[in-house]
Amino acid sequence: MTEENEKCDSCAQKGSCTEQGKEGTCIVDRMARIKHKIIIASGKGGVGKSTVSVNLARALQMKGFRVGVLDADITGPDIPKLLGIEDQKLMQEKEGIEPANAQGIKAASMALILSSRDTPVVWRGPMKMSAIKQFIQDVNWGELDFLIIDLPPGTSDEPLSVLQLIPDLAGAIIVTTPQEVALLDSRKAVNMVKVMKLPVLGIIENMSGLRCPHCQETINIFSSGGGQRMAEEVDVPFLGAIPIDPEVCAMGDTGQTFVECKTQAGESFSRIVERLLEMFN
Amino acid sequence: MTEENEKCDSCAQKGSCTEQGKEGTCIVDRMARIKHKIIIASGKGGVGKSTVSVNLARALQMKGFRVGVLDADITGPDIPKLLGIEDQKLMQEKEGIEPANAQGIKAASMALILSSRDTPVVWRGPMKMSAIKQFIQDVNWGELDFLIIDLPPGTSDEPLSVLQLIPDLAGAIIVTTPQEVALLDSRKAVNMVKVMKLPVLGIIENMSGLRCPHCQETINIFSSGGGQRMAEEVDVPFLGAIPIDPEVCAMGDTGQTFVECKTQAGESFSRIVERLLEMFN
Repeated sequence: MTEENEKCDSCAQKGSCTEQGKEGTCIVDRMARIKHKIIIASGKGGVGKSTVSVNLARALQMKGFRVGVLDADITGPDIPKLLGIEDQKLMQEKEGIEPANAQGIKAASMALILSSRDTPVVWRGPMKMSAIKQFIQDVNWGELDFLIIDLPPGTSDEPLSVLQLIPDLAGAIIVTTPQEVALLDSRKAVNMVKVMKLPVLGIIENMSGLRCPHCQETINIFSSGGGQRMAEEVDVPFLGAIPIDPEVCAMGDTGQTFVECKTQAGESFSRIVERLLEMFN
Repeated sequence: MTEENEKCDSCAQKGSCTEQGKEGTCIVDRMARIKHKIIIASGKGGVGKSTVSVNLARALQMKGFRVGVLDADITGPDIPKLLGIEDQKLMQEKEGIEPANAQGIKAASMALILSSRDTPVVWRGPMKMSAIKQFIQDVNWGELDFLIIDLPPGTSDEPLSVLQLIPDLAGAIIVTTPQEVALLDSRKAVNMVKVMKLPVLGIIENMSGLRCPHCQETINIFSSGGGQRMAEEVDVPFLGAIPIDPEVCAMGDTGQTFVECKTQAGESFSRIVERLLEMFN
């Protein structure tokens, strides 16, 4: 049995793969060139998954790692806006689809394919699955240290597709806000990841308290501490809490990351990245 | 041609319907007993669709209307938590599935079927479609003035299913936050609704500024005014803005509505309900 046959025999795509026998362009080959593949998930929407994804990518890149971001939210793709690359387009080249480049971070997203930013992607599950497969298989990610995969909320098609398509995922980071209703959905996401036999790398509590810019008092808009309590309950690591900061939101809206800022939010995020990197050493 | 045949001939379910010829239990018959069917949608998650849904339902019920809430978010069903009816279960009765009852508001949700609140619903599109169909067709909603349908974020399976399955929808309310990245996705939702030939009843801007409870100064966490600007841009009515209020979040977490409160958020919401009711008079 040749090496090629062995590789194909153990592949989840066997049977449906059109690349069999071709060197370097199948999912297994593409993904083998990426050291650590991390998914960013949540049960509830609007908790800051995409913000965590781009800031984690920037923090890792600033430390000298080669990083890519795969935006697996097909109907609400926000990564290009947050990375300030809305005007770029994905192009088909000889080696595959060339990813966009956000000051050194490679990125692929539906928003980089659509003709207009207001065009809705009114697609059912199988179409979304096929788009995600293209982002994994056809994009020329090259050699990377980290691929950050930003999932849409929920436990349906996109998370399932990513979990089934990508071999050798390092694990999942679950983002939540401290409010009960977000924790409720996040516990579902933790359980989905566990059922899929993937490690939960940890939980990040986002939007955890706000320091009033006028009087400096703390306001717990969405309560606080719930992420840590949940992490203990479901027995997974707690990576840290990020306070709400109007500056963070404004920076995201203008395509800037905040992890490099000497603010409370920036420093909290940097500590989370340190904790995460310890897991990979 | 009999009346029954005529009804079935014009029905979108013709061909796949198993209730043909039966009186009172098909989608068309069930939905004919509900005067106004309104969907609550958004592009982005976490903007407060479910909070708007339950408070709209409560406000209408307090005015004497008969109201139901259909939770069409299959993988992240939060309506029972927000209505304080997490301990209820949907039961099969002679007339169909009996909806839960939240102090007079009828409700159906996946969360009222699951054995545990932490169980993830790891389903692909067709399974979700069939659950939504059951909520529309098999639940004994009875005679209602309003059915509020709370959609999950995005423009994929659930919104498509609801838009295709429910005949005679009154229209959609789009909920957004003022931040650019939410507006981006909300414009997609507006366009999806328009493409489906459904009226956009209006846009609600949620989480619009916060008054510091310590110093009373205003903090624009997610910016402000974006919802109104977007409404003008896409030429649909602007229904109003709801400020962020830590009290609103805490009340949701304990299953209470806030529309009856004499707070800034409660009064803003009441004005939105008035504006909406003018459209139905």
